[in-house]
Amino acid sequence: MDVLPGRPVENTDSILIQLAEARADRIDLIAFPEMCVPGYLIADEWEHDAFLRECERCNREIRAASADMIVVFGSVGVDRSRKNEDGRVRKYNALFVACNGEFAPPSGGPYEFVIKTLLPNYREFDDSRHFFDMRKLAIERGASLEDLVTPVKVGRLSLGCVLCEDGWDMDYNVSPLDLLARHNPDILINISSSPYTASKNHKRNRVFSQQAAKHGKALAYVNNVGIQNNGKTVFCFDGASCVYDAHGNAVECPDHFEESALTVDIPLGDAPVFGRPVELKHDGIPEIYRAIHHGTSRFAALCGVNRIAVGLSGGIDSAVVAAIYSKILDPKDLLLVNMPSRYNSQTTIDLAQTLARNLGCCYVDIPIDQSVDLTRQQVDGLDIATADGSHRERLVLSAFMMENVQARDRSSRILSAVSASFGGVFTCNANKSEATVGYGTLYGDLAGYLANIADLWKTEVYELARYLNSDVFGKETIPPAILDLPPSAELSPDQNVDEGKGDPLVYKYHDSLFRSWVESWNRTTPEDILEWYAANTLSEHLDYPGDINETFKGAEEFIADLERWWSLYKGMGVAKRIQVPPVLAVKRRAFGFDHRESQMGARYTRRYRELKEQLLKPRRD
Amino acid sequence: MDVLPGRPVENTDSILIQLAEARADRIDLIAFPEMCVPGYLIADEWEHDAFLRECERCNREIRAASADMIVVFGSVGVDRSRKNEDGRVRKYNALFVACNGEFAPPSGGPYEFVIKTLLPNYREFDDSRHFFDMRKLAIERGASLEDLVTPVKVGRLSLGCVLCEDGWDMDYNVSPLDLLARHNPDILINISSSPYTASKNHKRNRVFSQQAAKHGKALAYVNNVGIQNNGKTVFCFDGASCVYDAHGNAVECPDHFEESALTVDIPLGDAPVFGRPVELKHDGIPEIYRAIHHGTSRFAALCGVNRIAVGLSGGIDSAVVAAIYSKILDPKDLLLVNMPSRYNSQTTIDLAQTLARNLGCCYVDIPIDQSVDLTRQQVDGLDIATADGSHRERLVLSAFMMENVQARDRSSRILSAVSASFGGVFTCNANKSEATVGYGTLYGDLAGYLANIADLWKTEVYELARYLNSDVFGKETIPPAILDLPPSAELSPDQNVDEGKGDPLVYKYHDSLFRSWVESWNRTTPEDILEWYAANTLSEHLDYPGDINETFKGAEEFIADLERWWSLYKGMGVAKRIQVPPVLAVKRRAFGFDHRESQMGARYTRRYRELKEQLLKPRRD
Repeated sequence: MDVLPGRPVENTDSILIQLAEARADRIDLIAFPEMCVPGYLIADEWEHDAFLRECERCNREIRAASADMIVVFGSVGVDRSRKNEDGRVRKYNALFVACNGEFAPPSGGPYEFVIKTLLPNYREFDDSRHFFDMRKLAIERGASLEDLVTPVKVGRLSLGCVLCEDGWDMDYNVSPLDLLARHNPDILINISSSPYTASKNHKRNRVFSQQAAKHGKALAYVNNVGIQNNGKTVFCFDGASCVYDAHGNAVECPDHFEESALTVDIPLGDAPVFGRPVELKHDGIPEIYRAIHHGTSRFAALCGVNRIAVGLSGGIDSAVVAAIYSKILDPKDLLLVNMPSRYNSQTTIDLAQTLARNLGCCYVDIPIDQSVDLTRQQVDGLDIATADGSHRERLVLSAFMMENVQARDRSSRILSAVSASFGGVFTCNANKSEATVGYGTLYGDLAGYLANIADLWKTEVYELARYLNSDVFGKETIPPAILDLPPSAELSPDQNVDEGKGDPLVYKYHDSLFRSWVESWNRTTPEDILEWYAANTLSEHLDYPGDINETFKGAEEFIADLERWWSLYKGMGVAKRIQVPPVLAVKRRAFGFDHRESQMGARYTRRYRELKEQLLKPRRD
Repeated sequence: MDVLPGRPVENTDSILIQLAEARADRIDLIAFPEMCVPGYLIADEWEHDAFLRECERCNREIRAASADMIVVFGSVGVDRSRKNEDGRVRKYNALFVACNGEFAPPSGGPYEFVIKTLLPNYREFDDSRHFFDMRKLAIERGASLEDLVTPVKVGRLSLGCVLCEDGWDMDYNVSPLDLLARHNPDILINISSSPYTASKNHKRNRVFSQQAAKHGKALAYVNNVGIQNNGKTVFCFDGASCVYDAHGNAVECPDHFEESALTVDIPLGDAPVFGRPVELKHDGIPEIYRAIHHGTSRFAALCGVNRIAVGLSGGIDSAVVAAIYSKILDPKDLLLVNMPSRYNSQTTIDLAQTLARNLGCCYVDIPIDQSVDLTRQQVDGLDIATADGSHRERLVLSAFMMENVQARDRSSRILSAVSASFGGVFTCNANKSEATVGYGTLYGDLAGYLANIADLWKTEVYELARYLNSDVFGKETIPPAILDLPPSAELSPDQNVDEGKGDPLVYKYHDSLFRSWVESWNRTTPEDILEWYAANTLSEHLDYPGDINETFKGAEEFIADLERWWSLYKGMGVAKRIQVPPVLAVKRRAFGFDHRESQMGARYTRRYRELKEQLLKPRRD
């Protein structure tokens, strides 16, 4: 099901349509995802009582439509007689089983719904912010979890129902499925609202396959599609629903990222085998592309956006963004804007034009030199003073500042005005490598309505470009020269692509370094990096294909580079990320609400400083 | 103590200095705030193992320095033999008692530290994201909370120690203090890291006074000063530490927002009375000003900023921001920039100049018409086309778009360049009324490095301006005419202040409406508002001093206004807030991490639509 966040009435309407169709098909049991009525990642919308009342009304409507059928669905469960620990009305992340106009409650516990036992509070998840906890409930009632985590008996069936994280119990001391299995339910059902993350489906399949096999029960995993966001970060949901037989074989899986009803005959009894095992293929760039396409098109629809302007530099990032939008929008609704200054090479200007022609969309070029010169005239050499003349000084715009002036002129002056008059918005084309160290200009290339490739490392942007040409377009729509150019901002003579000059980042190395800072579960810091460098094991720890000792001439250069980027990552990088557009998350630890940050500046531990001192100590040979 | 977030070594150094001084003063027991070693609001810094190791090393250093003295302090407690539920190493929000080089553990429980029992997960708090829960621990160990929540016996003393939220137990089913009181401790100690919120100190005093009296024990409340942030939102800590006698009288309270050591002789025995009760005065605009001053100056220091440019329009918001910075910076480090266009009146231009003269700081004016005209020439009437000519259109820049062009020209073109060449940054002068409904331009007046009055309603900005003149400056430094002008953006002929024209917001009414949406604990929505409007009780519910029936001519006008602003609040307002600078929080529900939002668009419940239909139904008189 494609769940619309914060739209209980629309979601309920679509559930009711599904129910009618299922009834016509004489379906016995139908299951919908976790929080399919209210949506799940809806931030503090849970604090609106009118919203809760609307959800409760929807829950009752679904109950009323459950004649002759078992309907399993996720929604908010409200207990108005008790308080949440924030003093508001008590809410549960709940699973409802409706049948013949009644809710079928679990055999234990005080409510007519099943309560999520394990509440995730990592990455983008904030469950404990809004929902009361099963373990707190057990303590409140003087009950044990064994009393409370029980199957739902409905008709002749015993359903072992859990919600999302309840199935991911590896890091918990409680296993809801183990508790349910004691009652020998006929089937296990996990309803989820679990966002897409690259590589997650491998683990997802392993986990649920093992659970089905362990308990010898068929298991239905039901997840939603669509997008949901918590402001700074937009999450795609790939569905990846699946039915496993009692031996752990995946037997039915609908297409990812697509709404569909999957109908399966599940025989009851001991360890039934049914259907044909299917092989699941996931992940890699093809699936990341699907996620970005899904997320980008849904986010535009969510914002009511149907025309887009992309600043097209002739470089790789904007080329990939333009190519993605060309698969979403009508050519007349996509406007590519090249904004050359005196530092842009004819090479990239031509490449931009070629790409626009290949994509068939609208194109225009608007030079920025005149405005940039005006800014220089107005600011550089300007005298400022206090009224009493006690302080006077003359402002100087440095070459570095002029780079930022150009970047802001493009986005805040030209693209903002052009996209508004085009009846749309403009994109942010930043990648994760740049975003990590703040290599970009606020209100300049870091502006836009959505940063849809900002969760991809620069090296992955190249991979995506190749995949777009080879598989999505089936031809060289993105000119190969764009892939061959040195990555460059072209904001100064030092960044002349025709002379092979460009960015200060060595992406192959820095991407693997930054990945270990941002994406690895046990995140690294300079202390870890230096330990590994000293032990000569850094390349393997970072999965870096190059040779560190060739990449850097000795410890001094290595350490200078490490500190340069770490200081930016924890310093200006944070300051900039606070003001960047929403990031479309496709991997672990997207910036924003998944990877949360405090502006505190960079610091180095004492152990790091000791290691550094040892490494830089002149050798007494 | 002024706690530096994410700076364990610096914090430990300052603790060790305090310890040395306390030892010289023959102090028996010294208490430092919650998380005074690592800092508290440090986002996902907790995921860095090198950071945890550094904190553990600091904890041991403090322990080693505890000869002949009891030292109570807050830090992270790490258990490397067990997992957190995120799969990382287990962490507790912990209180350590050190004495004579040893940690004194609580009499129950497995650790050498006291564990925070109640973990807050509302507003800016994310405790469950990082710290393991006492109730989960009880279930894990098959123990009861009675077993685990116990005093610390050290020397001849029994200390009833809790952490912050443990004392705010009104909405919990567990009271750590009640559990401790069963053991008849000699004294109660609450170490906290509790941010300032206007009006919170009234409640804080009531709560802790009642606890001291209820248990008949002296109670020391120890809170930190300084600032901490979680990216989007910056929180001030006012300290407000206090010692209560066993009858609940506050007997010693150091100045708020200032680091100081408070020394009190606390007699032991039954219900001792000691010291002279002090009367606590808090809140209102004077304290809000102190919080803004404290937070603004600390944030600048945290970012390494010592020069600031303020765009000065001649209106109230920028005048107040400039006045605040004039009390923080040297006049030569504060640059006020007036950027007139053809729509700015001589009135406001003159007022800006007068204010700059009154503040004695640097001033410059830089007109924007030339650049705005250039943008119009480059974009308005521009022909765009697809390469094959199948689609052609001409762009038109509307008058509304030209308003945004002006705002962006000021911030992204002029102020960005001027502040950089001045060696500093520039401010965002938005207020909470504008921020709520997105009445401001992205990359324009919504840009800047910090939005330090963005948690104040427009009506509060006026109050603050009056307070600045009357109490902070003691004269009319902010020209009274600035307070008398109609609030206006001066971006079009429709906003001519000399003709009494200005903003579309009626701040007295809209501030009270928006406050109920954003700040009230049980937040209102159009459904609640319309219920009250229909029942003629809206003014009292909103605490609106005016008469709704005079503010609006009938239900139709009222509803159109309500929907106009609600749609902006939940629509473009959210999109803009995602990209605004950090907000300095001084009240409940500052935008960002305190008030969390999802971009989902505005919606109206079915009950709202029913009410609306009834109200708009033509009467059959």
